[in-house]
Amino acid sequence: MSKDVEIWAEQIRKGDVRAVSRAISAVEDHGAQSEELLQRLFSYTGRAFVIGITGAPGTGKSTLVDRLAGHYRKAGEQVGIIAVDPTSPYTGGAILGDRIRMQGHAGDAGIFIRSMATRGFLGGLARATGEVALVLDAAGKQFILVETVGVGQDEVDIVRLADCTVVLLAPGLGDDVQNMKAGLMEIADIFVLNKSDREGADRLEADLDAMLHLAPERDGRTPRVVRTVATENKGVDELAVAIKDYREHFASRLGPQDKKIDHWKRRLAALAEDLFLRRAISDGAGEALLAGLAREVAGRKKDPYAAARELLAHADAKRKNE
Amino acid sequence: MSKDVEIWAEQIRKGDVRAVSRAISAVEDHGAQSEELLQRLFSYTGRAFVIGITGAPGTGKSTLVDRLAGHYRKAGEQVGIIAVDPTSPYTGGAILGDRIRMQGHAGDAGIFIRSMATRGFLGGLARATGEVALVLDAAGKQFILVETVGVGQDEVDIVRLADCTVVLLAPGLGDDVQNMKAGLMEIADIFVLNKSDREGADRLEADLDAMLHLAPERDGRTPRVVRTVATENKGVDELAVAIKDYREHFASRLGPQDKKIDHWKRRLAALAEDLFLRRAISDGAGEALLAGLAREVAGRKKDPYAAARELLAHADAKRKNE
Repeated sequence: MSKDVEIWAEQIRKGDVRAVSRAISAVEDHGAQSEELLQRLFSYTGRAFVIGITGAPGTGKSTLVDRLAGHYRKAGEQVGIIAVDPTSPYTGGAILGDRIRMQGHAGDAGIFIRSMATRGFLGGLARATGEVALVLDAAGKQFILVETVGVGQDEVDIVRLADCTVVLLAPGLGDDVQNMKAGLMEIADIFVLNKSDREGADRLEADLDAMLHLAPERDGRTPRVVRTVATENKGVDELAVAIKDYREHFASRLGPQDKKIDHWKRRLAALAEDLFLRRAISDGAGEALLAGLAREVAGRKKDPYAAARELLAHADAKRKNE
Repeated sequence: MSKDVEIWAEQIRKGDVRAVSRAISAVEDHGAQSEELLQRLFSYTGRAFVIGITGAPGTGKSTLVDRLAGHYRKAGEQVGIIAVDPTSPYTGGAILGDRIRMQGHAGDAGIFIRSMATRGFLGGLARATGEVALVLDAAGKQFILVETVGVGQDEVDIVRLADCTVVLLAPGLGDDVQNMKAGLMEIADIFVLNKSDREGADRLEADLDAMLHLAPERDGRTPRVVRTVATENKGVDELAVAIKDYREHFASRLGPQDKKIDHWKRRLAALAEDLFLRRAISDGAGEALLAGLAREVAGRKKDPYAAARELLAHADAKRKNE
């Protein structure tokens, strides 16, 4: 363990904003010392409560996250926010969108906000988000709010990081909302019916209740439904109570430990894959091999399975020299 | 190459619906013979034109896919449709949603429709979708329409399979549409402004044009914008023309070959990862190791990096015995 990483970790544990920012950048970029740093921080993690907040575009996620963070700040809690943005796969740049709504918290040292972009293919977004959450956890944030859009597999993986998953719905988002609801049904620990002052809210709630009535219980409970109007800060305290109740329910059962083990099974498998892929293609010879194989496969001169086995063999050969 | 796989592949090449269905199921389930079958079929692929169609929930993707398929059928082309549905990560079951709209094509042997669900963590959805597309390609489908929801990373990976990516927008989908547009901006080869008879369509088109005007050209062109009302079959012929123009532009340049090579680099890397993970954890000892490590990490008795390295070492030890 190098001395400077030790100092860095110590600064993070004290909540030093600059040290935390630098750590997050290092994690995002797979920086040289990031792994050592995370190893150092890991034993200080596991204290934060991670709340995943997801829902279709237009449901008002960012506003709700902002208000919920405000609620926890008022109660004297330290808060971290990770906003996972849809982004360009080509430039890797995050679309900050309406992050401007968060400006109200600028200058509050008790809240740390970070937007994250989709990652390249060496290391997924879920992995990076999980590592950023570990940094914020070690930095003493009591609540970490992770905001993601949509219901893609990556989003599901991100939501799996959370101790409690809040799914947002809002009236008037088109006829595919039925699909969204069904897709999100089984990952939701709490439903929020936002924009609940709008037309169609009662009907949406009735539809949701009907669905929940039919669905089997999860972890011995049926997800609660909370109505909010986030823009007017209505229902946010009720949501915080619902989260608290869920957390207490969660703490009193054995089930969640299994959930955490499942969670780490996935993360460890992904991490091992990353290590493998770095071994296989992160050097010049590996890169050249991959490019050459891709060219042959694109030209139908070799089938993809034979090509993938060559990559595996290259990694094995490198291993002997490690 | 076993004899029965050879016969199976031959049936698929002749477009036998039952053989194609069975192949897709085998691919989805990572069935015993699926790899051998795909190796056998691979040299007959690369002829189909794959069109990715994506957009937020409520933009009318399914209807547009249905109408576009109808257009190609009328022109005597064979069509494959792969509808990637949001789904439960727990049950693995697909939500068929409004697939009922496709019923108009039931009984038409020239069109093959398959819904796909999110996969587990051994083998991603993008991989399965890519392999199903290969089966349909080998079966002689001239056009393969791949429909996905949202802009998650997995969706982006799926869309990368396509030779041409169509991004749907529709007016009136809430204030986060701005984000969606930006996130999808760089993967779109063609934009469709669906439900273009609705209020807000002109403004949305103006916003989109303004964005496209500012964005750099991709592959020497600016994405075209086509207005449709899919429910009334309006604008579908124009969309087919835009796709045809894109395809011709695509065929006349060197760039797309690079795109295909990039595409196969990603797929080969993912395939090699799958092979590695199967080696590491698909046996009883590997499974038990992963579960034990996950338990230790969840209890903060071991850090995730040390645990992942143990998985890698297990895979290496198995390799020696292979």
